[in-house]
Formats: sequence, C-alpha cells, structure tokens
Amino acid sequence: MNHGQSSENILLRDDKEGAVYLTLNRPDKFNTLSEAMLAALQQELDAIAADPAVRCVVVGGRGRGFCAGHDLKEMRANPDHSYYQELFRNCSRVMKSVVALPVPVIAQVQGMAVAAGCQLAASCDLVIAARSARFGVSGINVGLFCSTPAVALSRSVSPKRAFDMLVTGDFIDADTALEWGLVSSVVADADLDAAVADKVETILSKSPAAVRFGKSMFHPQRQMALADAYDFAGNVMADNMMSPDASEGIDAFLAKRKPHWEQPGR
Amino acid sequence: MNHGQSSENILLRDDKEGAVYLTLNRPDKFNTLSEAMLAALQQELDAIAADPAVRCVVVGGRGRGFCAGHDLKEMRANPDHSYYQELFRNCSRVMKSVVALPVPVIAQVQGMAVAAGCQLAASCDLVIAARSARFGVSGINVGLFCSTPAVALSRSVSPKRAFDMLVTGDFIDADTALEWGLVSSVVADADLDAAVADKVETILSKSPAAVRFGKSMFHPQRQMALADAYDFAGNVMADNMMSPDASEGIDAFLAKRKPHWEQPGR
Amino acid sequence: MNHGQSSENILLRDDKEGAVYLTLNRPDKFNTLSEAMLAALQQELDAIAADPAVRCVVVGGRGRGFCAGHDLKEMRANPDHSYYQELFRNCSRVMKSVVALPVPVIAQVQGMAVAAGCQLAASCDLVIAARSARFGVSGINVGLFCSTPAVALSRSVSPKRAFDMLVTGDFIDADTALEWGLVSSVVADADLDAAVADKVETILSKSPAAVRFGKSMFHPQRQMALADAYDFAGNVMADNMMSPDASEGIDAFLAKRKPHWEQPGR
Repeated sequence: MNHGQSSENILLRDDKEGAVYLTLNRPDKFNTLSEAMLAALQQELDAIAADPAVRCVVVGGRGRGFCAGHDLKEMRANPDHSYYQELFRNCSRVMKSVVALPVPVIAQVQGMAVAAGCQLAASCDLVIAARSARFGVSGINVGLFCSTPAVALSRSVSPKRAFDMLVTGDFIDADTALEWGLVSSVVADADLDAAVADKVETILSKSPAAVRFGKSMFHPQRQMALADAYDFAGNVMADNMMSPDASEGIDAFLAKRKPHWEQPGR
Repeated sequence: MNHGQSSENILLRDDKEGAVYLTLNRPDKFNTLSEAMLAALQQELDAIAADPAVRCVVVGGRGRGFCAGHDLKEMRANPDHSYYQELFRNCSRVMKSVVALPVPVIAQVQGMAVAAGCQLAASCDLVIAARSARFGVSGINVGLFCSTPAVALSRSVSPKRAFDMLVTGDFIDADTALEWGLVSSVVADADLDAAVADKVETILSKSPAAVRFGKSMFHPQRQMALADAYDFAGNVMADNMMSPDASEGIDAFLAKRKPHWEQPGR
Repeated sequence: MNHGQSSENILLRDDKEGAVYLTLNRPDKFNTLSEAMLAALQQELDAIAADPAVRCVVVGGRGRGFCAGHDLKEMRANPDHSYYQELFRNCSRVMKSVVALPVPVIAQVQGMAVAAGCQLAASCDLVIAARSARFGVSGINVGLFCSTPAVALSRSVSPKRAFDMLVTGDFIDADTALEWGLVSSVVADADLDAAVADKVETILSKSPAAVRFGKSMFHPQRQMALADAYDFAGNVMADNMMSPDASEGIDAFLAKRKPHWEQPGR
C-alpha cells in the first residue's frame, strides 16, 4: 500500500504540557480517513503509546466536519477484495490503538462525525461535542453498511438505537448523542475549545501513574466475566497502591494538603 | 408435541414489495404464544430466512394486546418437566430466529407486551410502539419468574431497570421504554401504522444486499471481544464493498445521482 | 489478616419477616469498608446465602454517608503488595457475594456513595436513593484509580459515563444516577425509608421460590452468549414451572383469586 503523504501535513500534532492534540487536517475533504490519514494516525498513536511523557490525547478535526469516514473515491479506485480487507484492518487497528492507548483520549467533535468518523469518536474514552455537531453511520445510503463502525457504536449505545442509526443512515444531534451516552458533554459551539481545555486540565491535575493504571484496566476488564474482571482489577489496584503517587495522594488527603504527583518521562 | 392448528389462521402473513407483515391473530387470547403460535411463527421465520426476496419483516398483533406471553392454561394442562423444557426451547428458538434472520425485524407494538410478548418485542431489531402500549415481564405475579424473557430484556436495557421490572412485575409505559432504549420510536396510537410503513419504506429504499450484510454482522459481533469483532466486521465490510450495490452506491454518490440497487430473488 | 472487631457492632443486622436489613454502622468514619467491615459483611452474606428463610436483603448506612469506600488510613498503615492484593480480593469477594446471593439485594443510599461505596451500591440488584445522595469514584484524587469499583460501575452505566466519573473523580447527583440507570428510584430524603419498605413489601409479596429462581439466573446469563443464555434460562424456567408456587400462581390467576405461596425455611 502506498501511503503517499503530500508535503502538506494531513495530521497536525500539537504538544502542550503532557497533552497531545491531534488534528485531522484535510478540511476540504471533510478529514476523510484516507490511507494516508490512517497511516499518519497510526504513526502518531504508536509514538504516543511509547512515550511516557504523554498524559492525555485530544483528537479533533479542522473545518466544518469532524470526519466524514472513509475516502470513497480512493476506495472505488481500488476494487479489490484484499485491498479492502487491508484497508479495514488498518482502520480497525487505528480504532483499537485509541482504545489500547495507555492514556485517556478525548474526541473534540465540532461538526459532522460520519461512518468511520463516528466510529473514531465512539472509540475515544470521552467525547466533547459542540451543540451543532451531528453523528451518523450512513454508509447504508451508498450500499455499504457501516459494519466496522457498528463495532464501536454498539459498545457505546443500546442495541436498538445503534441498529436504527445503522439501517436508516439517519443522523442524531449532539443532545441526542448525550442522552444516549455516545457523548460525554455537549457545549455551545463557541465554548468547545474551552470545554476541551477544561477537561484536559482536569486530567492533567491527576496522578499520571494512576490515570495510566486506570486507562489500561478499564477496557480490558469490560470484556471479562465478573470474577476474572475482579481478579484483574484487584491486581492493577494493588500495583497502583504500591506507586509513590498513591502514598503521596493518600497522605496528602489525610493531612488535608495538596498532593504532588511524580511527573513521568521528562 | 401436537401443534393442533385450528382451521382459522392464528398467524397472518401479508407480503408487500419485499416486506413481510406477520400478525399474531388470536386477539381474544391476547395473541398468546401457544404451542401452535410458536410453531406457526417458527415456520414463517424459517421460510423468510430462506427467501432472498424478503427485505424486511414486521411483527404485530391484532386486537388490544400485542402479545400476552405464554398460554398459561396450556402450560398447566401439561405438568411435565420435559414438556416445559421443550416449550421453552421452542420459544427460545423463535426468539433466536428473529435475531438471526438475515433482514431487519420491526416489532409493531399497539398494546400490552407481556412476558414472552415483551421478549418478542425486545428480540426485534427495532420496536415502534403506540403511546398507549405497555411493557412488562410479570410472570413473577404467578410464581414464574420471566427467565427466558430476561435474556432478551437484559440485552436491551440496563441491568438495574431489567431486574426491577422482572422482580416487581411492574409495567412501564411506551415513553419510559423509549427513554430506556427498549423501544426505538413512540408515536400517537393513530399514527402507528403510518410510522411502521415509513420505517419499512426507509429500509426498502436501501440496498438489499447491504442491509443483509449489516443484519448478519450486527448481533454476532456484539458477543465477541473487540479484536475478534473487528476482524469479523472488517471481512463482512470487504465482502460488502465487492458487491455491485456498493460500487453503484458510491459511484452514484460521487456523481450526485440516485443509486439503483440490485433487486434480489424475484 | 487480623479483623479485630471492636466490641461495638460495626455492622447491624435486623430481621423482619424474611427481609434482612444490614446497616453499616461506623457513621463517624462514613462507614468505610475497613478490613473489619468487609469481614463482617462477608460473614453476614455467607449466613444469608445459606438461610432459606431470607427473601430479601437491604444494605444501608448510618449517618450522613452511605459508604466512603476503603479505609485509607488502614491501607497506608500496611504498605505491602500482598496485603493490598488480599484486601482487594476480600472486597471483591463481598461484591461478588452480593451479586451471587440467591435473593434480591437493595441498596438504600441516603448520602455519599464513594469509591468502593459506589461499587457496593452498583453491585446491588436495585438501588433506591434519597434525592440528596451522590455517587462518585474519586480515588483518582488520591492517586488511586478506582479499578475494582470500575468493574461494577461499567456493568451498570454506559462506558463513556463510567470512564468520565473514574478519570475526573466528579460526583453525580441522584437524579443523574437515575437517568443513567445506576439507580432504580429516587425519592425525597424524608421518604427513603418508606420507599425501601414499599419495595421490600413488593418483593415479599411474590413467590419466594420464583424470586430465588430469578435472582440465581439473572446475573449468570448476562455473561453468556445468547444461545447459552437461552439454554440456561430455559432450564431454570422449566424447574420453576415444576415448583408448587408456579402451579398455585397460575391456577389462582386463571381462577381470579389471590395465590398462596409456600413459605420456606421457618
């Protein structure tokens, strides 16, 4: 597969005090997940996963749309079963990498989140949406049921709601997405940057070690039977208790003072 | 087991342009799921599963009730453990057949959906309810906890809500069912037929092949671990992309024209 | 591990007509789940599990808080990995025992339910909360991500909501908990005792055998694939049908009279 990145950067990365802002930057193409975009995302996610200094990630999009899903033109230009298998494998790898990342990932959704774009938002740990944002899995309208997006969507909202969206292609607005649990918070469009910055600041104020213990535990345990989940979570929590931050945090709490967390990496 | 169907049809079937309307037709008995009714449903579901021309199914009930669940009189007339095992096996087979059907199934709920009747609605992909409809799993009131209905109900609504309904036998109204995600839409009683017809029309306007790919993928992937679900869904989606409808749908979208779908079967 | 119970009773037990009220009784310590409290809870839960006369359990707390979670001071006094492993194993065992108990367990939440205290509520089958009650998993604020509470919480509310609570440590009020499905009912503070008494009375009015069949089936089937869940639930329901209470309940229903249930144990 030729990822052919143009000289212009299709994925922007901005680092601020332990937070990484990844911004899809093909606004004229509604930030579609072309091969090149998926490759660029995977590269950054892999780098972030290996970097102990990163504490939080924000995924956003430039322009009017958050992400319109796959690049349909590129897909039609490669009418080959193994090409599609690899494409969906690569796309699924990006989504699984978001879930597996050892730090929280926030989707900042300012516009339409469509098909694999809706899946990208649903794959994040938190979703903060502008009130005018909309969510849909409308592949059905072009004869392509959003099967891989359904994996993420049906793990975020109730099955009847997910199936309805998938089979009709209808969009839901941000307030409905909030009510259904797909979105964590909805704010006025003008307040979106500030709301994301607030959430990032909240996460950065916590113990970096504790946040990592939590993110690494949360998704795997959801897939386990109850007894296995408790065994796993109990061991993670015992490890967490042995970390300097837990000692410091509890001592500070008992002494009614502010805790000082260990700052990793740098 | 003797299914003893009367000469009168206890299950009506009406075919309209690829949609099959199945109507429980024992209104004086609140459409209970007697042995005969279960056998009739299974027969139609099996026929539909084998018929490539069917594109959508609606399950409704005649009279004031949607479905009152099992036929308690018939059950008491056969006080035998292996009889009950077979009865619940047959009933569960109907419910699993609804889930496994390769096309979407809509429950049209005009009245009370009780016990296995509530389970039947919960087993459908979409539920459209009249505002006066009510939902309950009230077997507990006759000393029989709704165990098999609990399987479908607890996969549609949150565990505390499901358990509350099961242990109290209390009914919820259609608006509560909508809020809880058990129901997809609620409309005024007088608008129920039109709302169902609208949803059917929407589904029939989509690519038959794509809808089948989607329905066949949606429920199995929900039971898989995330990585397995993505492998499965990715392969289904690659197959879907190789279908003529996906090519046509995407080409039409890019050319800003209406797509023409392949019509299966007939 | 030395459970060192004081002469004063840290866990009160009150039996009323088949209902057992367990009350956490360290109000000055916000009813923390110290080693001694966990041991006392486990002892009562084991006794209840073995007692056929018990038909319903209520777990409440004395004072302003429902339960503040683990005893942080005690934890810090034992800075040892295997100590923490055993502590979380013991705590998880209490939570799993609540889930596995053969009768319904109601959490009566009159105040803050924090960390493992929120987990205790989430582990119960039903949660009745006073309007002023609040729920949080705020271990993150002391450098200790609420990993074992996450197991219960993420099985009660949608993943984005659970993760948001876990990573921010923010509390939700009772009405939000109701909307999210964490809580079954919310009542005015002054009406909490009466609301719990009503729910207990409702459960006691049902067939003891049927309630036990249901509770023993409900949680295990949620962890199974659909076909396995139906096999399991169908067998439980056949057993239930062979019980005297199901015969009596259905006969009474058909004869339009009140049923008389078998009273177990005593």
